[in-house]
Amino acid sequence: MNIGKAVDLTHTISKGMTTYVGDPKPDIKQVKKLEHDGVNLSRLKLGSHTGTHIDAPHHFVSNGITVDELDPEAFCGQAVVLDLSNKKPGSGITASDLKRFTSSIKPGDIVLLYTGMSEHWGEQWARRKFTYLDEGGAAWLLQRKVKVVGIDYLSVEKFASKENLTHKKLLGNGVLIIESLNKNLRKFLGKRIFLMCLPIKTKGTDGAPARVLAYPLIGE
Amino acid sequence: MNIGKAVDLTHTISKGMTTYVGDPKPDIKQVKKLEHDGVNLSRLKLGSHTGTHIDAPHHFVSNGITVDELDPEAFCGQAVVLDLSNKKPGSGITASDLKRFTSSIKPGDIVLLYTGMSEHWGEQWARRKFTYLDEGGAAWLLQRKVKVVGIDYLSVEKFASKENLTHKKLLGNGVLIIESLNKNLRKFLGKRIFLMCLPIKTKGTDGAPARVLAYPLIGE
Repeated sequence: MNIGKAVDLTHTISKGMTTYVGDPKPDIKQVKKLEHDGVNLSRLKLGSHTGTHIDAPHHFVSNGITVDELDPEAFCGQAVVLDLSNKKPGSGITASDLKRFTSSIKPGDIVLLYTGMSEHWGEQWARRKFTYLDEGGAAWLLQRKVKVVGIDYLSVEKFASKENLTHKKLLGNGVLIIESLNKNLRKFLGKRIFLMCLPIKTKGTDGAPARVLAYPLIGE
Repeated sequence: MNIGKAVDLTHTISKGMTTYVGDPKPDIKQVKKLEHDGVNLSRLKLGSHTGTHIDAPHHFVSNGITVDELDPEAFCGQAVVLDLSNKKPGSGITASDLKRFTSSIKPGDIVLLYTGMSEHWGEQWARRKFTYLDEGGAAWLLQRKVKVVGIDYLSVEKFASKENLTHKKLLGNGVLIIESLNKNLRKFLGKRIFLMCLPIKTKGTDGAPARVLAYPLIGE
């Protein structure tokens, strides 16, 4: 397998950036300055699901494993990018929506859902009315034996869901989740890529910010 | 180039973990619990140089570029792991110490210095008395045209240096830095590896926590 130059699928983490409604607001503060202290140094305050991030089973599974317990390569591997941007914002991606991609998904794949919501990053209306993966769609991906599901917006779940059945279906069955990929995902619609997604290794947490790079597969 | 299974060179970020003396203490707090809130969620407080991390030029260079401005692959590539564990804790690695490795370093390499200090992670005495890279050693590596210098302890600099000449020599000339690699680095002494080091993408910061994986090169 030969790979090309990386494309960054990661949002920049900044003070006051878009987050899931109700999550802690990220803050970055410079605490030492080169002119006065001889060094520039900063302090970060982040929710565990800030910006482009991963979900560990512990997010929604009682006694589920945490970020530091995951295999470091759990989110790395061959990925297929599916175009679901025909779905109306606020609607759920169903098993029926996914069936047309059957022949492009292999067991062990990372499946990345491009909803087009990433084009509306930072727009207030979109924080509550975004395309999600419904429980049936999650079950369908589970049957395909995928290892990770990624999406280009704040959550795989319908906004303000009480039951969180999509997260529970995936995480409860060993399928991991990447959320808030940026709109560069559009560059790979319908293609297979190699994904490097490395979360920071935080002890006991339910999720963690990650850096996510997409590598084109040369000759595919 | 074929690569083997990844080895994690990253420390787990945890509350109260070892940091550079005077840096903000990391804290992780669970803010929502599955039993009460229907979800597990955490909040992180971190210094920009917590655990295994990278230094951007802005750390010690006036108007130097920040973490979010770096190429996402700036810390990725072929690396050579040098054994400097013969150096006494508290002493500086000199150009003379490095000369014996001349034939193993190529232009564009990442050079990882194994000092053995990583075996003393968490020991109080070691926080102030660790092996460092002296200014002459930094100048020598710069002449070899390496792209990144990594080390298996808190800093490339002598503890409590006022001048910070090693950082300034490297960062001021476009050579980036990785600090606090864990003791797994020992597994690759004298070898070439492929390094994937991905920092989180924090806006305007001087450094950032990173996930760092070492891949053995098969057939090398």
